[in-house]
Parts: sequence; C-alpha cells; structure tokens
Amino acid sequence: MAGKGRVTVRDIAAEAGLSIATVSRALNQHPNVTPKTRELVEQAAERLGARDPRRPGSRRSSLGGAVFVRCPYVLTDYFGVIVSSIAETLDRHDRRLVLNAGEAAQDADVLPGLPDVAGVGGAILILPPESGSELVRLSATGFPFVVVDPRTVLPRDIAGISAAHASGARQLTAHLAKLGHTRVGVIGGPREWLASSARMDGHTAALADAGVLPDARLVRYMQPTVEHGYRAAGELLDLPERPTALVAFNDKAAVGALQAATERGLRVPDDLSIAGFDDIDLSRATFPQLTTVRQPLQEMGRMAVSLLNRLLEQHEVEALHVELATELVVRGSTGPVPSRR
Amino acid sequence: MAGKGRVTVRDIAAEAGLSIATVSRALNQHPNVTPKTRELVEQAAERLGARDPRRPGSRRSSLGGAVFVRCPYVLTDYFGVIVSSIAETLDRHDRRLVLNAGEAAQDADVLPGLPDVAGVGGAILILPPESGSELVRLSATGFPFVVVDPRTVLPRDIAGISAAHASGARQLTAHLAKLGHTRVGVIGGPREWLASSARMDGHTAALADAGVLPDARLVRYMQPTVEHGYRAAGELLDLPERPTALVAFNDKAAVGALQAATERGLRVPDDLSIAGFDDIDLSRATFPQLTTVRQPLQEMGRMAVSLLNRLLEQHEVEALHVELATELVVRGSTGPVPSRR
Repeated sequence: MAGKGRVTVRDIAAEAGLSIATVSRALNQHPNVTPKTRELVEQAAERLGARDPRRPGSRRSSLGGAVFVRCPYVLTDYFGVIVSSIAETLDRHDRRLVLNAGEAAQDADVLPGLPDVAGVGGAILILPPESGSELVRLSATGFPFVVVDPRTVLPRDIAGISAAHASGARQLTAHLAKLGHTRVGVIGGPREWLASSARMDGHTAALADAGVLPDARLVRYMQPTVEHGYRAAGELLDLPERPTALVAFNDKAAVGALQAATERGLRVPDDLSIAGFDDIDLSRATFPQLTTVRQPLQEMGRMAVSLLNRLLEQHEVEALHVELATELVVRGSTGPVPSRR
Repeated sequence: MAGKGRVTVRDIAAEAGLSIATVSRALNQHPNVTPKTRELVEQAAERLGARDPRRPGSRRSSLGGAVFVRCPYVLTDYFGVIVSSIAETLDRHDRRLVLNAGEAAQDADVLPGLPDVAGVGGAILILPPESGSELVRLSATGFPFVVVDPRTVLPRDIAGISAAHASGARQLTAHLAKLGHTRVGVIGGPREWLASSARMDGHTAALADAGVLPDARLVRYMQPTVEHGYRAAGELLDLPERPTALVAFNDKAAVGALQAATERGLRVPDDLSIAGFDDIDLSRATFPQLTTVRQPLQEMGRMAVSLLNRLLEQHEVEALHVELATELVVRGSTGPVPSRR
C-alpha cells in the first residue's frame, strides 16, 4: 500500500480553516455537521487532490470512512460485549459502524464485495467463518481489516486480536491440579478452532507439570452451547472412572455441565469441580458461581479499532498479531478433590 | 408527508431494464453490485427525476437507504437479540444497518442530526433515553423512525413496538395466586418506565381478582440488574412478615433475588417462589430454572423493520402502536405457598 503523498485530515483542516475534529466529522458523515461545513471540507479536499473515499472502486485514502463490522452470530453476552465496545470506540473516533450480524449472516458471501462498498473504509471481522484463503484474498485487494478472535491461524500479514487462550487454560488447570485433581475432563470447543487447540495445549502443559499425561477418553469436542455442554458432561460423568473436575470451553457449556452434575446428584464443588471460560454475566448467575477465565472482551473491541485506525491512517504497524492477557477468576464451583476433603 | 408522485424502485427497474432486487441493492449500496450496474441505476433514477436519497438535506424518497439503529446499551441477551434480529431482517431487505450502541452512546445527542445523515433513510430507536418531546421534534421533521420498547407513552403518530407488559405480568401473578400466594413482593423496574407501570397494573389486577389489595410495602423500584435485584430482594425478605413469592422486573433481577434467598437459607421454591421476565438464556442457567414471561424479542426486531419499511415506502400504516404477545413460561422456581405443602 502506498503510504506517501496522501492527503491527511490535518491537511484538509488547515486548507479549510476548520478544526481537525470538524473535518473528521464531515468526512465520516457525522450527523452534527451542517451542509455548509460539509461543502467547505469537500472543496478543500478537492483542492488538495484527495480521492473521494466514497466513490466505489477508488482505494480508500487516509480520510477514513465507515467501518464494516461483521459478527455473524446472535449478539449475546460474548459477541455483544465486543460489538458494544467497538461501537463506543468507533464513535469516539467519529467513525460510523455498518453492522452485519445475526446467524443468518453466516451464509452471506460479503467479503469479496467489501472493498467496493461505498463509504466503507475498513472492516472488523469477529470470529469469521470464512477460510484463511478467503481472508488472504481480501487482504490482497489492499482493503484494511482486522480479525477479532480468529478461528484458525492467521497469515502473518493479516491483523488479528485474540485472547491468551493457552496461558488462560494453563492457569485454570494448574489451579485444579493444585487442588489435587488429576482426572480432569475437557468439554472442548469445535475441534478445528484455534481457541480449542490453544487451550488444549495449555491444559496439557499444566497437567504434565503435575506429572499427569493427557487421556483422550476424557476429552470431548463440541459446539459451545449449554445443550452441548450438558450432553458432553453427561458422557464424561457416566464413564466407569469419572473425572473429579470438568473444564468447559465457555461459561455456557459449564452451565450445561452444572445441570448434568445436579441431575446425577453430584454436589459442586464437593463431589465435582466445574470451570468455565469467558467470564460473561452467566458465570455469576449460577449456584455456585463459576470459576472461569476472564477474556478481556471490551479491550478486544477497543484494540480492534485502534489497530484498524492505524492501518487506515497508513501508520507502520509492526506486531499485527495481538494477544491480550486472560485472568483466572476463582469462585465457588471449584474445590479440593473429594479424597482430600 | 407527500405520498404521491414519488419514483419507486419498480419505476427505476423498468427504466433501467434491471430486476427490482438489483436496483434495490444498487440504491442501498450493497457490496455485490458492479460500478457499471450502479451507474445504470443512477442514470435511470436521474431520468425519472428521483431525488438523491443520499444528499443531505433532501427528503428521503421511497428509494430506501440505510437504517440507523440506536441501542445505547451493552448488547447483552435482551438488547443483543433484538439488534441481531433487526440486522438479519434488514439484510433480507437489502438495507444497511448503521449501528449506534454501547452505554457511552446514551450521552450522544444524535437525534437532531439524524435527518441529515447522508445515506440514512430511517431509524429504529431501542428503549430510547430521549424524552417524548425530543421524539416529537424528530417526528416533526418527517424523518421516518420506529421506537422499540418505548420508555414512556408515545404520541399517537409515532410508530412504536412493545411487548404486552400488562397481560404478561397479569398471567404471572395469576399463576402465583393460583398456587396460594397472596403476599407477593415486587422487584419493579425504574419507576418512570412505561414497562414498570404497565406490569404493575397487570400484577395489581391479578391480585385483586384473588381478593387481595396492593401493599406498597411489598414494592421496590430499581434499575433492572443482578445487583439491584439482590439488594431489593434482601429488603423484601427481611420484612417482619416476608413475602412468599417475588416477581422481578427481569431475569437478571430474579437471579439477584435467588442469591439473596440462598444467603438467607431459603429454599426455592419450597420456602419462596421467584419469577423473572424476558426469558433470556440466563433464566435456564439457574437452579432451579426460572419461571418467567417470554418477550418476543426476535419478533420485536422483525416487526420494527417491517413497520419502518412501510413508513419508508410511504404505505398507509393504520395502527402505529404494536403490542406483541408475551407468554408465561413456568419452570422450577415457582411452587405452592409454603403453608399448602
């Protein structure tokens, strides 16, 4: 991407005799701009030879534009918190947010057309269902975008933000090992997801530290929902030698596990420890409340906007892959292994 | 609003020799439209004298445009489900969604500028924090918008969609009365909200049917969060003569009530019945699961888009205030009054 010879917001502001904030608002189609001001800005931009960021086919310039946010899932706690944070942050930067959301959006083939959407300067893709090669193709057009929570390993030159899955899972299993648990069942996410394998690595490492080798019979991969968590937990708890603790891919699956345990007359944490991942509201609604690993969802949203802004402004970005720290949150659902009580 | 002499999408399609769907996509800045097609459509529209829906200051025509969705809250289960449904429905109608969300958006004074936002043809305002007179002022500009879940009573000519609060609350309290409960504590929402007073009416009516007059000592008004529900429930349960059942403004507040009950050694539903409202995921995550009143959140989103589309297309809309049915969902958290066991 050419990084030189571009007209900046600062240039236009100087030319038009307006503040940078006003120019930015006008260029981003902000409501609180009078037609008169908009005209002044457009004339100044024209005099400086800035290309129109809204004309289809023309490459986005450093002038900004709206941000297309694709989150093809129902916006519940996890996705909703990320999107809300992106919305607030974009607003602070006077950029509009064009939303593509809901499960039906998974079937939409929007990536190829993105570079030609009038008024849209860049995109944030949240847990994109698209393959790596589709992302590479979009990247090859020069269209700036950032991936939040990538499903698969991203190519080096595509910007991505994820939580520290491995170290979070490692901390959690180390916490359980310290409580004496060596038979720990895993209710994993979808087998092909990056998050699933990274967390499995962390889990395995923590167990190995405690002198325990992984046991494939104790692992289930599934969609991260309450129902699937319930089913997977049932299978693990019905094993001849059942685990004394279960770690779930997310808090929803952990809620399902709690239900499976309750149905079998198992007390949590006396007979069985259960832990989730994410720390969404749900994790404090159960009894006992869930031990979990907090993902910095708001920060993921803020960081996505910040990275995208730097790409849009043609700044040098060195580390395109950002991993944000997770945090172990110990609550009532985990306790000492039964034999130690 | 002038409803005649407008150029319709159908007219432009005929003039340009393109399908209606293609013209609609081109006018709505859909990604999958080639620059060539876009040009054909624009030329046809110009020949027919259609006003440019994107030019600020010009009145939106029947040509559509993007929809501004304002939901100044964190998109958790309740708001997130509504916004996701709106997103999916707008996509099916080939309309773009410009999102304004997150709690920080509450401070933004966006309504006055809305009619001048380039490319935006209408708006959906979800539980708007703005006063009735601010909504009236926006309506007076002729800008089409729909209010979902209004906080206060809407003027007749402003389109609004809400759930049947009164009848839902009535059904719930009738269910409790049938189980023998006459001392029912109310963890109400904010006192000034329409939803709060409508539900209080339903509650009072059901109690009166059972021969019981309302008792102000059993009512608390508060923000609908887990924390406030916990606190309000604590106050009600510490009364000299404590209620045998609690109805909460939403499922979150009911979760707080469950925690307050557990802390006091009260078994639910044996010693105390607790019910929520909304039927979000949370209500199935507790133990016991919550009896609640289901709000048709997805349908509220779909109906909002449908109403707005009709306003945008200048169709006659007779009933501007739509109330969608709620449904009582009985689960484990409510049971017979203790003396009857």
